Amino acid sequence: MGAQETIGIVGGTGALGFGLALRLAAAGRPIAIGSRDASRAEEAAGRVGEQVPDAQVEGLENAEAATKGPVVFLAVPFRAQSENLTNLKGALTEGQVLVDATVPLAAAVSGRATRLLGVPQGSAAQQAQEMVPKGVTVVSALHTVSAAGLSKLHTQLDEDVLVAGDSREAKSRVAELISLIDGLRPVDAGKLETARLIEGLTPLLISVNLRYKAHAGVKLTGLPEDLWP
Amino acid sequence: MGAQETIGIVGGTGALGFGLALRLAAAGRPIAIGSRDASRAEEAAGRVGEQVPDAQVEGLENAEAATKGPVVFLAVPFRAQSENLTNLKGALTEGQVLVDATVPLAAAVSGRATRLLGVPQGSAAQQAQEMVPKGVTVVSALHTVSAAGLSKLHTQLDEDVLVAGDSREAKSRVAELISLIDGLRPVDAGKLETARLIEGLTPLLISVNLRYKAHAGVKLTGLPEDLWP
Repeated sequence: MGAQETIGIVGGTGALGFGLALRLAAAGRPIAIGSRDASRAEEAAGRVGEQVPDAQVEGLENAEAATKGPVVFLAVPFRAQSENLTNLKGALTEGQVLVDATVPLAAAVSGRATRLLGVPQGSAAQQAQEMVPKGVTVVSALHTVSAAGLSKLHTQLDEDVLVAGDSREAKSRVAELISLIDGLRPVDAGKLETARLIEGLTPLLISVNLRYKAHAGVKLTGLPEDLWP
Repeated sequence: MGAQETIGIVGGTGALGFGLALRLAAAGRPIAIGSRDASRAEEAAGRVGEQVPDAQVEGLENAEAATKGPVVFLAVPFRAQSENLTNLKGALTEGQVLVDATVPLAAAVSGRATRLLGVPQGSAAQQAQEMVPKGVTVVSALHTVSAAGLSKLHTQLDEDVLVAGDSREAKSRVAELISLIDGLRPVDAGKLETARLIEGLTPLLISVNLRYKAHAGVKLTGLPEDLWP
């Protein structure tokens, strides 16, 4: 078994990004946590190391974290998505896969977290695809997993992750990483434009959560056993 | 126990409407199946009777079916929703609840069933609320239940139904009816405007179904036991 590829997480000090870093480090993958501020990223890497003693994790500036491996997660608030993508233009290179987990909640413009903004490109994921350098493939995923649950290693997850993208190969690679997290089942939801519908699940779950004081997740019923043949 | 209230189903000869009529008749409820054409409604009522020998079911014109009970289901294609609501203006009366199951798929305008149209009011349900007579309350529900599964009594269902509306009392009444169908769990998803996000689940499931040749349904994880206190 050769050395495993590093997973870069832009916005790795935020709730979702940190949860991802923690879970993927616990699964034995080398992680590059990115932040606007390298010292905050280092601090987050330290917190991962406290919980996962043998973690291979480093903290870097976002743009540097984005160069560390073939698959990079973008886990930033929608308000900062466009700015982050501009900053990554010189960092991302042809052949990389960018996993966009951004949700255009109206909260980004001081509206409600139970409402979705209209994004000119159709969805945050399509905005990402428009902004990444040529040859970088965007996959949309991880909109419905509770950051709170992800960030607590002892929380048993049991839900689906809808994955959308125009490249089946890129989706498969992302699905493989998601499958490393116990209790998450990736489901191929179709082309990248489907992200528009998937991103709407987040404000919908927030609405349900407000009502029931819960951290709801999504599961699809009626699917076959083997989802990634 | 007094006589039970009749449930009206506008568009009860369509796939979803017929499935609802069949399941609710099997649960012992009197049903008024509506259709543009009364003879087609009678024919559908006959088909319910073949499968549910003790069914109390009649076939009527849509507008008449809509007067038969306090809760009326609207199960018509989006293309015909506005026309149907216009025709119901003289039939629906104050105090009734209209359950809108319409999904504004782009297929309504010869586009794809994996895409959602933008509706000026925000959602098909909000369009319904704008068009019903004063005092009629719209509840949005039943967008993700496969009509194919509903129409086969022997198919064991096991999924959630997201229910949205501005009146908690109206939502509770609808939830009670949905709960009569074995294997369906109604979940309060919030205010009527949430229908915009819920309606998006249908093209999303259609996209997943195309990929996996499945009839996927939705379930939410992490919710409390008692959803309708």
